[in-house]
Amino acid sequence: MTGTTVAGFAASAVSSGVCGDGVLDLALVASVRNQPGDRRGRLVVSGVPCAGVFTSNRAAAAPVQVSRAHLAATRGRIAAVVLNSGNANAATGRKGREDAERTCEQVARCLGVAPEEVLVCSTGIIGIPLDIGRILGAVPALSAALTQEPGALDDAATAIMTTDTVAKKVRIEADGFAVAGIGKGAAMLAPNMATMLAVLTTDALVEPPQLSAALADAVGRSFNHLSIDGCTSTNDTVIAMASGMASGRAVGVGELADAFGAACASLARQMAFDAEGATKLVDVKVIGALSSSEALVAARRVADSLLVKCSLNGEDPYWGRVVSELGSAGVAFDIDRVSVSYGGVVVCAGGVAVDHDRGAVRLHMSGREVEILCDLGLGDGDAAVVSCDLGHGYIDENRGTS
Amino acid sequence: MTGTTVAGFAASAVSSGVCGDGVLDLALVASVRNQPGDRRGRLVVSGVPCAGVFTSNRAAAAPVQVSRAHLAATRGRIAAVVLNSGNANAATGRKGREDAERTCEQVARCLGVAPEEVLVCSTGIIGIPLDIGRILGAVPALSAALTQEPGALDDAATAIMTTDTVAKKVRIEADGFAVAGIGKGAAMLAPNMATMLAVLTTDALVEPPQLSAALADAVGRSFNHLSIDGCTSTNDTVIAMASGMASGRAVGVGELADAFGAACASLARQMAFDAEGATKLVDVKVIGALSSSEALVAARRVADSLLVKCSLNGEDPYWGRVVSELGSAGVAFDIDRVSVSYGGVVVCAGGVAVDHDRGAVRLHMSGREVEILCDLGLGDGDAAVVSCDLGHGYIDENRGTS
Repeated sequence: MTGTTVAGFAASAVSSGVCGDGVLDLALVASVRNQPGDRRGRLVVSGVPCAGVFTSNRAAAAPVQVSRAHLAATRGRIAAVVLNSGNANAATGRKGREDAERTCEQVARCLGVAPEEVLVCSTGIIGIPLDIGRILGAVPALSAALTQEPGALDDAATAIMTTDTVAKKVRIEADGFAVAGIGKGAAMLAPNMATMLAVLTTDALVEPPQLSAALADAVGRSFNHLSIDGCTSTNDTVIAMASGMASGRAVGVGELADAFGAACASLARQMAFDAEGATKLVDVKVIGALSSSEALVAARRVADSLLVKCSLNGEDPYWGRVVSELGSAGVAFDIDRVSVSYGGVVVCAGGVAVDHDRGAVRLHMSGREVEILCDLGLGDGDAAVVSCDLGHGYIDENRGTS
Repeated sequence: MTGTTVAGFAASAVSSGVCGDGVLDLALVASVRNQPGDRRGRLVVSGVPCAGVFTSNRAAAAPVQVSRAHLAATRGRIAAVVLNSGNANAATGRKGREDAERTCEQVARCLGVAPEEVLVCSTGIIGIPLDIGRILGAVPALSAALTQEPGALDDAATAIMTTDTVAKKVRIEADGFAVAGIGKGAAMLAPNMATMLAVLTTDALVEPPQLSAALADAVGRSFNHLSIDGCTSTNDTVIAMASGMASGRAVGVGELADAFGAACASLARQMAFDAEGATKLVDVKVIGALSSSEALVAARRVADSLLVKCSLNGEDPYWGRVVSELGSAGVAFDIDRVSVSYGGVVVCAGGVAVDHDRGAVRLHMSGREVEILCDLGLGDGDAAVVSCDLGHGYIDENRGTS
């Protein structure tokens, strides 16, 4: 069930005080085994296969730099991931990297593993030094609280929320193995991930290279098709860890990628539903493009358009703006072949308005989920992007940091 | 003075009824000569050198398609430009092109020129057929009203307003010649122009190829450095016409490009000041890039960032978002070399926060014009983009078409 760890993992969350007294803001996910012969059920933490996908932003934050280095140093065997909200530890220079390393060292000390076996993720404000004293001070309690009890992942998901209004979590039952994950993200979400963090755990038996391939595939078909505001964060991180405790059967890249893909797609839709100031989740689908990569470029262009997003906020099926964005996407385009539908109702065909059931479109636009389908009429390429509308709330959320 | 035509041009504006009774929505700018020996001062309209720069949107509207064809057919000799607001005649298929041609034919008939000597520009809603009856019906009065009196260009500038709140016009006095222009545009403004229309007239003596080169240069350094919302319209058009009545001296491309550039830059700043829902004009300057083209990519990325725009709306000097956008722009970037200043006050150096005069920054951010200077510290490339903040008004303006 959601919120429950899969075999071989434990989680915990505490308040470090960075986000205010009593607010959960520090989370830990660790690979654990029961201590042989220990009747008190104490857990032993140790490294398991792990993979990560990180932001493409060249201003990558300190935790991203440190986590990348630790994954490389251990060749993909990690024992724990520590995550904090409230401060992204980004644009913080050498001190920021030292702070990220010290966080890993403190976690390693408490769990009895090597510092390189710990990854770190941060989310929050950019450019302000981390209050490292509070983080280091909270790690012992965080480590002591590690548990496999139901609800442990729920608390971890809650602790990484920033402007999120709901915790994001997912559980997928596959053939002989399971995936449990948490995520956060509500803005600065764009192609090539987002200010989003996600940690996936699975009990599948898999080696690091296969785990890495499956994760890359899953992210490519889920988070990389999510776009809230076109901004790419300094801290984007998706981590997957595999305990191998499900069975003796090695899981193939394809089936693991499918399970991870389903988990990531669920988290991505949860993020879009919770996007800052948004009232609707929007599926933008482009078919009939010359290629699927051109379809993706066109779908992103429509999904990221401020004018289209404003129309959606007003529940206005203004397809002219959709056609205009398709035309300016830089892909092969012939306006005389274009058709556009909202919720399956064709409103534009051959590049011009067509009579249609306006009531049906109005009803569809008033819903919580809106689908825009664009057929370029040129080839077999298709792609889909998950996005949202743009409302006053987004501006209110982002006009000030205090 | 502003609003007065230069020698050899006349203008007029009427209400066609498309935008409501009595609302000026149809404008005409024509090249005119006094009829020899005519004491009543009647004007003769005839073709003069003309150049145009049009949208890069592949969903180019009917008037863009027709104007491009007419410029090609006449090899750059045009007698008049007719402009309507209220309907963009875009995504209107064959009927749209026929309507644009019929508008040119009607103007040509009234002015005694060939249809190919008339260009047409439209701005307004996309995807709705033009009310061609009202346009054709209004053209005779529009043509009869042509005048060189002061205020004629003012009325034309007013007639092409859509969501603009003020008419945009400019006059530049150069060495031996003058440039007078009008423009419109308040949203859907992006690199490679905008939903913007502009008509420049000059009395300079110049042939079509040189006129075309000067206009392209001027647009490249002005309108193409303006970005309001990253959207590129279906109808963008900048037209320049030259009467040659200033003197016998042929004007060089360079000096004409300078005068046009100054005129276009003025119109671009007027558009940014009048951007929908915006409260501030923002100059984003990037220096120290590996090349000037990389600097322009980075400056556009910062200028188009929703998160940066929201910060500006809130007068919040959140430089972390600026650094994040620079890092995700895809250009050469080393965070340890970056500095950012607001209004000349350095807030970030070497990629981290620096102590600074917060009062001075607060004062600068509270003004009507804000300057963000980003030094990448890598090379000699520089570029500047004119933009604006993002406020509730933009959403309110664009969430519904009715």
